[in-house]
Amino acid sequence: MYSGDQILIFERLKMFFQKNTVSLFQKIPRNLGFFEKNLHLSKSALVTKEFEDAKTKLSLLKEDPGSDVKLKIYALFKQATVGACDTPKPSMVDFVNRAKWNAWSELKSLSSLDAEKEYIKLINELVKSEQGETNQALPDLKKFQDIQTSIEFNNVYKIVLNRPTKLNAITFTMYNELIEALSEAENNPNILMVCITGAGDYYCSGNDLTNFSSPSAMSDIKKAAKEGGILLENFVNSFINFSKPLVAVVNGPAVGISVTLMGLFDYVFASDKATFNAPFTKIAQSPEACSSYTFPRLMGPVKASEFLLFNRKLTAHEAFERNLVTEVIAHDEFQSKVWKKIEEFSKLPPESLLESRKLMRDGDKELLIQTNKKEVDVLVGRWSSNEFVRVIMEFWGNRSKK
Amino acid sequence: MYSGDQILIFERLKMFFQKNTVSLFQKIPRNLGFFEKNLHLSKSALVTKEFEDAKTKLSLLKEDPGSDVKLKIYALFKQATVGACDTPKPSMVDFVNRAKWNAWSELKSLSSLDAEKEYIKLINELVKSEQGETNQALPDLKKFQDIQTSIEFNNVYKIVLNRPTKLNAITFTMYNELIEALSEAENNPNILMVCITGAGDYYCSGNDLTNFSSPSAMSDIKKAAKEGGILLENFVNSFINFSKPLVAVVNGPAVGISVTLMGLFDYVFASDKATFNAPFTKIAQSPEACSSYTFPRLMGPVKASEFLLFNRKLTAHEAFERNLVTEVIAHDEFQSKVWKKIEEFSKLPPESLLESRKLMRDGDKELLIQTNKKEVDVLVGRWSSNEFVRVIMEFWGNRSKK
Amino acid sequence: MYSGDQILIFERLKMFFQKNTVSLFQKIPRNLGFFEKNLHLSKSALVTKEFEDAKTKLSLLKEDPGSDVKLKIYALFKQATVGACDTPKPSMVDFVNRAKWNAWSELKSLSSLDAEKEYIKLINELVKSEQGETNQALPDLKKFQDIQTSIEFNNVYKIVLNRPTKLNAITFTMYNELIEALSEAENNPNILMVCITGAGDYYCSGNDLTNFSSPSAMSDIKKAAKEGGILLENFVNSFINFSKPLVAVVNGPAVGISVTLMGLFDYVFASDKATFNAPFTKIAQSPEACSSYTFPRLMGPVKASEFLLFNRKLTAHEAFERNLVTEVIAHDEFQSKVWKKIEEFSKLPPESLLESRKLMRDGDKELLIQTNKKEVDVLVGRWSSNEFVRVIMEFWGNRSKK
Repeated sequence: MYSGDQILIFERLKMFFQKNTVSLFQKIPRNLGFFEKNLHLSKSALVTKEFEDAKTKLSLLKEDPGSDVKLKIYALFKQATVGACDTPKPSMVDFVNRAKWNAWSELKSLSSLDAEKEYIKLINELVKSEQGETNQALPDLKKFQDIQTSIEFNNVYKIVLNRPTKLNAITFTMYNELIEALSEAENNPNILMVCITGAGDYYCSGNDLTNFSSPSAMSDIKKAAKEGGILLENFVNSFINFSKPLVAVVNGPAVGISVTLMGLFDYVFASDKATFNAPFTKIAQSPEACSSYTFPRLMGPVKASEFLLFNRKLTAHEAFERNLVTEVIAHDEFQSKVWKKIEEFSKLPPESLLESRKLMRDGDKELLIQTNKKEVDVLVGRWSSNEFVRVIMEFWGNRSKK
Repeated sequence: MYSGDQILIFERLKMFFQKNTVSLFQKIPRNLGFFEKNLHLSKSALVTKEFEDAKTKLSLLKEDPGSDVKLKIYALFKQATVGACDTPKPSMVDFVNRAKWNAWSELKSLSSLDAEKEYIKLINELVKSEQGETNQALPDLKKFQDIQTSIEFNNVYKIVLNRPTKLNAITFTMYNELIEALSEAENNPNILMVCITGAGDYYCSGNDLTNFSSPSAMSDIKKAAKEGGILLENFVNSFINFSKPLVAVVNGPAVGISVTLMGLFDYVFASDKATFNAPFTKIAQSPEACSSYTFPRLMGPVKASEFLLFNRKLTAHEAFERNLVTEVIAHDEFQSKVWKKIEEFSKLPPESLLESRKLMRDGDKELLIQTNKKEVDVLVGRWSSNEFVRVIMEFWGNRSKK
Repeated sequence: MYSGDQILIFERLKMFFQKNTVSLFQKIPRNLGFFEKNLHLSKSALVTKEFEDAKTKLSLLKEDPGSDVKLKIYALFKQATVGACDTPKPSMVDFVNRAKWNAWSELKSLSSLDAEKEYIKLINELVKSEQGETNQALPDLKKFQDIQTSIEFNNVYKIVLNRPTKLNAITFTMYNELIEALSEAENNPNILMVCITGAGDYYCSGNDLTNFSSPSAMSDIKKAAKEGGILLENFVNSFINFSKPLVAVVNGPAVGISVTLMGLFDYVFASDKATFNAPFTKIAQSPEACSSYTFPRLMGPVKASEFLLFNRKLTAHEAFERNLVTEVIAHDEFQSKVWKKIEEFSKLPPESLLESRKLMRDGDKELLIQTNKKEVDVLVGRWSSNEFVRVIMEFWGNRSKK
């Protein structure tokens, strides 16, 4: 549903377009500065010190709070200094004054004092929000052991794989923590997207083999393989079901599941020092994270097989050519360029971004969930196989000879 | 079904292949000029002036009318000058004479006079067809306001988006005209393919925003959005259901729906000055023309998201690398090279072309129609949203400050 | 299911990983040379000349027979020279000695003489297997007329299209032989993958048109087209249903069905002298081998149409960019590089390779079989069409004029 005011705004927009432009993508005439001309505050006398302070703070804000907020500020200011709106409603074609009149009128009979209080409160919230942005983490995020999370640009949930001395290999703990972190980001309506990156020189060295070394795993391999399978399936499903853009910031080499997962991401930044490798068959394993479905679609079967069956390691540029990576950036300027771009992304209209993404994703979801299940079944079989044991032994033997 | 004659032709073809070649792609021996040697007309005396004139016209034809027509001409000429065929049927191995004998015999007891008339009529049609080719438009095409249509090379339906001063932005009128033009091309059995290009420097600047400024739209936005949605869905379906090759001749910048539609084309020529851009989320809209389905399949999800969600503008070469464009051509020689190639396409065997295309298309058709519907539903919601209004206002505000 | 021994091995592996490494992809400590240190044979006195000879042969083996076989050799040697194992079972943490003890104990009360015989037999098999590798063909392969088959690297089934004077055009005989060869490779459990290449300078010039020139085809084209369709459908299905990696070694130009089939391969090596061409519509035919489905998915519809509808010939590099080829190699070093790489592939753990491939393939199988059927139906219609006859005649005419 849309409001009467919205219709008016729309009508003015349309009349403007009709007279002046053909498309949004052409040049917009420059005589349109109605916002800065018309939305400045009236210079009326003000009552309290706090009210004066609020005015000062308003002038010091670094960021434009947006037109909705500015109209609200205008209305509260008028209500506090003049009282309830009793001027005649401006004509439909006097767009800006009508928008201001509407905002003011909506306050109805709010007392001047209450209007002043709300004005002060609103300005202080804007100031607080601006200061909040400069902090790396909001206080109420869950704390984790193997990953580190923070909020960037007010709405970007950043996850750092944080075991740099182990090249960010993914432990069972980390799998569980990533599932929890995605859930936190999913359920927080302020979060627009999630970025994942690695601490240190590696992005991620894949599944940590110590995952099979818990005392319980040692007593029953088959059971351990099954449990590992359940965790893996949940982990991958938490990516398939995630409803917000997933951005990988691949700061260095990526191995195994950290690469195959990229087939479920929306944007992959790669340093030109990053490499991409998933030598599954070399260690008698099999592809996971839906890569048996996504990779042939990304790069065609003969290049997907080269990667998933025949263990080819890709440079960042090769990964770009194979549609696994959106953009390769020189390592020296990687961090600065990436986060500047993510900040731009963070300002996009959220409904439009999420609904557009949903259109691109929903068609494949059911198939991805089935694929995940099939892949995990095969992988559980692989973990329990003699071939896996044999290959690991020979791998050691060869390594130790060198 | 196949005719007895066809079998004979086939038999000779086969015997020839059996003796002389292995494959069509090897060199063909040069002693095969049976056509020019054997299909010249007999030099018999002729009766009327018109008949004499027709003979002259035949000798002046610039284009070979093809073997079928030449056999027909031969037969009518014999019937007119000699009468019904009563010579013995040539042996099966005397291929060319047998083909000629068959053509002649098929005329049975047609009178000399009627044969002469048909001969004259056939030659005149050939002459007329050759002259027709040099005209840009056939007289019986529908006339349109915002697009210009013509027939090229006898069977190519050319559509020019013709609002160069408005950068060929698509009005509601133009949407309706394009639907009508595609319908005209679909239903004319002589049309083999459709080419779309833009007048002036732009290919197309996308959806014209004045589409929302009719008096009726101004009084009820929700209704206007719904009506826009119905039109859009019909428009895109008319491309999905079109049964002949669709060729885009992208002479300059392409924006919005003119780009997303390319996922439904068969061939996209792009000038190296063309650019490709669809900043949907920037203006709080969402992808249409099935691009939420086609683009991830063309270029993989992470590059499709960059384009459809994160508003990346592509150069022609980038669009080529992302499989959106078939071929990039230097702007200086763009028009000449493109139309020369389209002329070659126009001469391909039509049944083979259309049936092969159908094989490539039919599998996806139902899914495309569903995708179109889903996308339009989301877009209608977007047009009615507060976010859209807010973004448009901020867009103006920012533009006007510069 | 897993054995008790396997559990022990696993436990040791886990403890090692737990203490020493994080991931397989990190450096492995070098003090792990338990294999060469511990698996040398004991220097006990030996009985027969054959036993002495076997020992000598063992030392001359060029290839490491792998840990399983080495443990078996150790056990047989102990049994032959010492007798049944009666030493105490080593502790669980003394991994290597426990593995050796297990292997020895498994022989139970086998007599020294029988152990010696088995030892001699085993060594001789290893020697024979190593010599066998240098032979090009194993004796028990089926013999064919138009193709040549051999076993490379013990488990790679190599097929050479062997009509170099006819540029390896595929006759009906060759279609049938390829179906039989794939069946032989499928049913031999020792075969891990199949490689197909061409004799001489061409890879394959496509369908041999003499396929339509048998006496029976000459008497009834429609029947011949139908029979050709049945053969083609079986041929393509034998690729769709094949369960092992298919590798194309494209040594030179590839035409028609030899190109479209590549959409069903797992790996395509191409010489930089190779070209790829399928001018179906030029000769009034239509795409086959599921290319109407696979090619748009490999390279997007506008490039697939360029190739399948508009007869574009691709260089090897263009075929690589369009995801039809995995790897382009300079012609001079093509054979050496390709077969070295295939030898590497041949050593991959077979279960892992086959199960991983199955994951990548099974999802599309049913759709491929349906696509094959549809394509064949259209192609049978094409073969029986007047258009096909006409085009062939004009093709000849034009060729012969030059």
